[in-house]
Amino acid sequence: MLDSVLVWIDKNRRAWLDDLKQWLSIASVSADPQHAADTAAAAEWAMYYLRGAGMQTKLLATPGHPSVLAVTPEGLYPPGAPHVLFYGHYDVQPPEPLDKWLSPPFSPAQRDGRLFARGASDDKGQVFCHMAALVAWKQIAMQIPVRLTVLLEGEEEIGSIHLRSVLEAEREALASASTVIISDSSQFAPGIPAITTGLRGLVYYQITLTGANQDLHSGVYGGAVANPANELCQLLGRLHDASGRVTIPHFYDNIIAVEEAVREQWEKLPFSESDFARGLGLEALRGEPGYSTLERRWCRPTVDINGLTSGYQGAGAKTVLPAVASAKVSMRLVPGQNPAEICANFEAFFRAACPPGVKLSLECLSASPAALTPSDSPAVRAAMAALEIGFGKSPVLMREGGSIPVVNWFKEILGIDSVLVGFGLPDDNLHAPNEKLDLDCLYGGIRTAAALYDKIAGN
Amino acid sequence: MLDSVLVWIDKNRRAWLDDLKQWLSIASVSADPQHAADTAAAAEWAMYYLRGAGMQTKLLATPGHPSVLAVTPEGLYPPGAPHVLFYGHYDVQPPEPLDKWLSPPFSPAQRDGRLFARGASDDKGQVFCHMAALVAWKQIAMQIPVRLTVLLEGEEEIGSIHLRSVLEAEREALASASTVIISDSSQFAPGIPAITTGLRGLVYYQITLTGANQDLHSGVYGGAVANPANELCQLLGRLHDASGRVTIPHFYDNIIAVEEAVREQWEKLPFSESDFARGLGLEALRGEPGYSTLERRWCRPTVDINGLTSGYQGAGAKTVLPAVASAKVSMRLVPGQNPAEICANFEAFFRAACPPGVKLSLECLSASPAALTPSDSPAVRAAMAALEIGFGKSPVLMREGGSIPVVNWFKEILGIDSVLVGFGLPDDNLHAPNEKLDLDCLYGGIRTAAALYDKIAGN
Repeated sequence: MLDSVLVWIDKNRRAWLDDLKQWLSIASVSADPQHAADTAAAAEWAMYYLRGAGMQTKLLATPGHPSVLAVTPEGLYPPGAPHVLFYGHYDVQPPEPLDKWLSPPFSPAQRDGRLFARGASDDKGQVFCHMAALVAWKQIAMQIPVRLTVLLEGEEEIGSIHLRSVLEAEREALASASTVIISDSSQFAPGIPAITTGLRGLVYYQITLTGANQDLHSGVYGGAVANPANELCQLLGRLHDASGRVTIPHFYDNIIAVEEAVREQWEKLPFSESDFARGLGLEALRGEPGYSTLERRWCRPTVDINGLTSGYQGAGAKTVLPAVASAKVSMRLVPGQNPAEICANFEAFFRAACPPGVKLSLECLSASPAALTPSDSPAVRAAMAALEIGFGKSPVLMREGGSIPVVNWFKEILGIDSVLVGFGLPDDNLHAPNEKLDLDCLYGGIRTAAALYDKIAGN
Repeated sequence: MLDSVLVWIDKNRRAWLDDLKQWLSIASVSADPQHAADTAAAAEWAMYYLRGAGMQTKLLATPGHPSVLAVTPEGLYPPGAPHVLFYGHYDVQPPEPLDKWLSPPFSPAQRDGRLFARGASDDKGQVFCHMAALVAWKQIAMQIPVRLTVLLEGEEEIGSIHLRSVLEAEREALASASTVIISDSSQFAPGIPAITTGLRGLVYYQITLTGANQDLHSGVYGGAVANPANELCQLLGRLHDASGRVTIPHFYDNIIAVEEAVREQWEKLPFSESDFARGLGLEALRGEPGYSTLERRWCRPTVDINGLTSGYQGAGAKTVLPAVASAKVSMRLVPGQNPAEICANFEAFFRAACPPGVKLSLECLSASPAALTPSDSPAVRAAMAALEIGFGKSPVLMREGGSIPVVNWFKEILGIDSVLVGFGLPDDNLHAPNEKLDLDCLYGGIRTAAALYDKIAGN
């Protein structure tokens, strides 16, 4: 039956493309209150499309943008089929700066086998692959191979503010799922489909040092009082040793080493460090000694300053001892690192090193662990088989350096592991002007999604 | 005759205050090109006021902000009277941060016997004391006791960029002066007028580190590329050792030690370190071990960060690896330290320590040595007598931690020593929000200036 579904998917490429363009034309910018009606319209469009696959839909209101919940009614799936939860988001990043777009962000345009629009890859285009696959199954087989719950949120780009409470409210309906499928990541490279089995966690701090009760003249007072900017640099400068390793006590203590087999697989991936550096305009890469660039991005933790603010920042010279110096510092965590322990050690490091004459304030803005999903579960094996069917190439197992907090919440609140099957490419310009999805990725993604539910059902 | 002048000065306090407020209302921020017209207007206002004292004025154009030159025409001073050069500046520091001002910086406001405005003490208020004294002499005596040249520059707060060439161009007109009078410093404390016999020098750098060709996602790229903000803090953090001593090679090598007699005099000055700390809202002072707070401010060199800028500085968290990080760093030099050698060692320190993966840019914005002036010349004795007349207390000899590069240039280019007679107070909030001048300092300053020219004339 899958073969017939795939044939029908391939025959209807033009229709899929037209349908996706409709959805991409709706400016569901969750960050912008002026687009609240558009965001609601994008949710409505998804419900309409899911009903076309025979699903029952419901809008879950939140104090912010609603989530869409869709379930397969009895009769639409074979009795006894596994219960699968698909998660995605229908909101998009703001399109600014508009003058950098070659075609308007909400007027989807095809150029060179690519579809350009805000949300083409992140995440409407990837969610659409699944919705189209469901429509195809309904059309050809009159049913969907699994019992499926679709959950689409409208606040992913603004921190998934209300998703935790949605998950808690719908726990009973969701928790019987055996796996979560997410398509909000990318393939390793064109022609190299991938499953992402790990994400780094994130701890983010605002650090502020305060000295005198006001900015002081650096001539009159310099040398006689602690300078918060000097002290902040001394403290932050001590976070790494000369080789680039983090010096916070116990920072590396509990890291779960990457299995040798996984590491060997990564070494075989076609990745050029010099191309990577050149693309960023860099003459040299720099990172923790003893690790490759992929390892540094995927499985090694970091401490990075995200922002520095102190004293005079205008043109020319102003001779001032700043009263305040502050920094934003993030840590990317890897499996084994406990955010609470990392926070405690980070804070202890600063409190122990802070000299007299300045006041230290530490504010933790977020703390979430890394996510490591099983790489040999039945769901992952189904996803690998599906990607091979969808794209004609056997997929690799990779990780990503960023964080998708919802993966942790599915584990924590529902007890379910996620499988990250991304259809995009690393050059899709996510969060940037000229976001795009290659049409090959779109059509391969629909094929993959169609095969995935069939394989999870054990067919 | 001086007595009549002083009586008239005391009678016209309200008028002096109103006149000064006019001048302080002009936002002559030399660092900010948007205030170029205001800066020119402040020069015009000074010329207008000096003409009111019978002086001939001329605007000396430079590629930057102009200088004002005013001379006593024949007939305005007694034949054979000594030639005195008065120097001051009409430009002011940028007023930022604006939200810390209790009243707008360019709307002069009186509170508790103080006048609050940017420039109230540094240096318009102090220059005004001399201009008012000249007006008083002209009004009461129809002449000024000395042959006087007034030179006001408009670039003191941005390193007196063009003053050297002004001095060289006007050398003939200026070099016959026997002494330079400068009022751009402060009294030792309320009720303790002072003459300043030493100033620290200033070297000021803009340091920029550049990494990738754009800001990067800290999750996707963190750990794999050098982070300019991390590296900048490492470099800046190494400028001091744990005790607070500067680590730049040869930094302390050639410092001329303070004579024991001078040091003993300083120890007798009424200065409470705990009051000093309390006044700044500090629980503890911090500085080079082995020196008192006065020594740290007056005769020990410093390295201070004046500003830090990098990455995201708004509210909350943004996960970004900054493409650029920059700092403004000043060094205060003491007698014996050669600015050119200090610059060379400073730059070598950074170039040697800068890691691969970031580009280093060092821009020297100014470099001037410390100044030591004679403490027993006739001009100094005249100034001591004038301060006693102006403020009713005998003055002390002190130093200041700030820099007035022009003092070196007067010696080097014109061969003339300067006498620094300051009317401000240490808590005037120079270069900081809520700059002020006590009205007692204003009125005492006008009296002192009136007496000073009379005493220099030998009366």
